[in-house]
Amino acid sequence: MKALRFDGKNLNYIKDYPKPQTGEALVKVSMAGICGTDLEILQGYMSYEGVLGHEFAGVVVESKNKDLIGKRVVGEINVGCEKCDSCKKGMQRHCPNRSVLGILNRDGAFAEFLSLPEKNLHVIPDSITDKQAVFVEPIAAAFEIKEQVLLKPDWRVAIVGDGRLSQLIISVLKTSCSDITCFGRHQNKLERLEKLGIKTKIGIKPVEEFSYDLVVEATGSNSGFLDSMKLVKPKGTVILKSTIASKENLDLTPAVVNEITLVGSRCGPFRPAINALASGIISVDGLIDSEYPLEKFNEAFDQAKNSKTLKVVLKP
Amino acid sequence: MKALRFDGKNLNYIKDYPKPQTGEALVKVSMAGICGTDLEILQGYMSYEGVLGHEFAGVVVESKNKDLIGKRVVGEINVGCEKCDSCKKGMQRHCPNRSVLGILNRDGAFAEFLSLPEKNLHVIPDSITDKQAVFVEPIAAAFEIKEQVLLKPDWRVAIVGDGRLSQLIISVLKTSCSDITCFGRHQNKLERLEKLGIKTKIGIKPVEEFSYDLVVEATGSNSGFLDSMKLVKPKGTVILKSTIASKENLDLTPAVVNEITLVGSRCGPFRPAINALASGIISVDGLIDSEYPLEKFNEAFDQAKNSKTLKVVLKP
Repeated sequence: MKALRFDGKNLNYIKDYPKPQTGEALVKVSMAGICGTDLEILQGYMSYEGVLGHEFAGVVVESKNKDLIGKRVVGEINVGCEKCDSCKKGMQRHCPNRSVLGILNRDGAFAEFLSLPEKNLHVIPDSITDKQAVFVEPIAAAFEIKEQVLLKPDWRVAIVGDGRLSQLIISVLKTSCSDITCFGRHQNKLERLEKLGIKTKIGIKPVEEFSYDLVVEATGSNSGFLDSMKLVKPKGTVILKSTIASKENLDLTPAVVNEITLVGSRCGPFRPAINALASGIISVDGLIDSEYPLEKFNEAFDQAKNSKTLKVVLKP
Repeated sequence: MKALRFDGKNLNYIKDYPKPQTGEALVKVSMAGICGTDLEILQGYMSYEGVLGHEFAGVVVESKNKDLIGKRVVGEINVGCEKCDSCKKGMQRHCPNRSVLGILNRDGAFAEFLSLPEKNLHVIPDSITDKQAVFVEPIAAAFEIKEQVLLKPDWRVAIVGDGRLSQLIISVLKTSCSDITCFGRHQNKLERLEKLGIKTKIGIKPVEEFSYDLVVEATGSNSGFLDSMKLVKPKGTVILKSTIASKENLDLTPAVVNEITLVGSRCGPFRPAINALASGIISVDGLIDSEYPLEKFNEAFDQAKNSKTLKVVLKP
C-alpha cells in the first residue's frame, strides 16, 4: 500500500509499504489531516519513527465485528495495554504502555490502510462528510477542556493563538461562554473568527492584563505562555493545550504569587465531538485550505508549515 | 524603636528607627519568626527595602477600636487598596496595589512595633502561646491548599521538601488525607515527621513514580519541581507552594502529556489556622530551634540559613 513514513530524519513516500496485519480492525483511510503535532514530530518530537498521521476518516474493510465492516469511522488514537491500573480505570489515554496512532509505536493514517482495535472506532453518521470527520480528533481534544474545568457562563475567556487548534477550541468554548477574545497574529485567521462573533486582538494592551478568568494557551510557544500568564486574573485558570518546545524562561513565579491554576490538556472524548459536528453546533467550514494526494506530500507539508494555513488534508 | 531594616544590600540593626505613625492599629511585637521568604528577600526577591518580617504575635497598644487595645493578636499580612475590583470581591490578598507586611511597601515585624489596619488583626485566645502564634501565618498558607483543592480522603499524597513550611503543610493535609509521604533530605526533619506517623523517603525509587494523586512542591527549587512532576499520577494535581527562583529547565511538557493540574498557592485564611492551633488539631511542638533578641540578628539568620534548622524566632 502507499504510505508516508518518517524515518527519524526524513518523511518518505513508500509505494509498497506492508499493509497492517495486526488482528485489529483494518480501516481504508478516506482522508487524513496534517496537524501541528505531525510538524513537531518531523522536528524530532516524541522520537517517533513510522507512518505519520492521526487525524482521519475511513471505512472498515476487515474486522472480527462483522457489523463494523463497510461502516464509515473515525478512531481514538491512544491504544492502552488493558492490563495496567490506568487502563483498568478506563484511562487508556494515560496508559504508560500505550501506543498512539502515528505518534508512538503505531503506524498512522497517512497511508491507504491503518489498523486500530475495534473499541477505538466510532461509526460516524452520513451527515458528517469526510472533510468534517478529520476534525473529530482535534475537536475531541478541545472538548477535553470541558471535561477538566467547570466553565462558568459569565467568565471572560481568552485564547492565545489563532491556528487550527485555536479555531476549534473557540468553537467548543462558545458552547459554554459568550465573552471570548482571541489573541492572534494572522489577519486571515482572525477574520474567520470575527465572522463567528469572536473578539480578536493582535498584541496585549495594558488594559487587557490580568483580566481574564480563563486563558487557553494554544501556540506551544514560550511567548504564548508568557502572554497567557499576563492575561489571566489572579486565581484564574490557564489551560495548557500545546506542549511548549522551549524550556527557556518558563517563569512559574506569577503562578504562585497570583495563585493561578495551570491545567495540562491533551486528547479528549470523541462522542461529544461527533455529536457536535452532526448537530451543526460546531462548524468547520472554511478550515480546510487544500487537499493533496499522498504522492504530493512535499507540497502538502510545505503548505501546512505556512503560518497563514489553517488545515491541509491528504487523500490516500 | 529597635528594628531590623534591609536596605537592598544588607540587613541592619537600627536602635532608633521611627515608630510607625500610620493611623492604623499599633502592635507591640512579642515574637516574630524568620521564614524562607525573608531569606529570599535578602537575596533580592521582591526588591524589597524596609523592616523585614511578617510572621508575628503581638499586643495592640493603640487603635481606634478601643476593644482591641491590650489584646494579643496575629495579623494578615496583605493590605489591599479597598478600591479595586479584587478588593471589592474580598480578594485583598490579590489587590494589584497591595502592600505586604515586611515584603512589599510596608515595614514588617522584626521591630518593637508594627502597624496594620484593624481589619487585618485576629485576636488569639490565651491557650495559644506566642511561640505557637508565630506559626499562624504559615499555617494559614498551608490551609490555602484546602481552599483551592477538594482533598479526597483516599488520595495518596506526597510532599516534596521537609522544611518548616512542609512540616506545617503536612499537619494541615493530615486533617483530610491519611496516606502522606514526605520526600526530604534531612534526617532530623524527617524524624520529626515519622513521630507524627508520616512516611518519609530520601530519593525517589522507580516504584514511586507517577503514583501520587496530589503532590505539594514546597522546596522552591528546580529539582523539587522536577521531582513533583515525576511523582504525580496522570491527571493528578501538583500544588506549587513556593516560588521557584531558577527559571532553567522548567519543562511543562509532562504537564500537558499527563494532563497535570498545577495550582499556585500563596497566603491563606487565618481563622482556621488559629482554630486548629487552639483546639490542638495542629501541633507545632519541636519546630522552634532557637530564640534570639533582635540585636543578635546575625546569629539568628546564620542559624535560619542552616539546612538542618526548622524555625528561628526573634524577640524584639
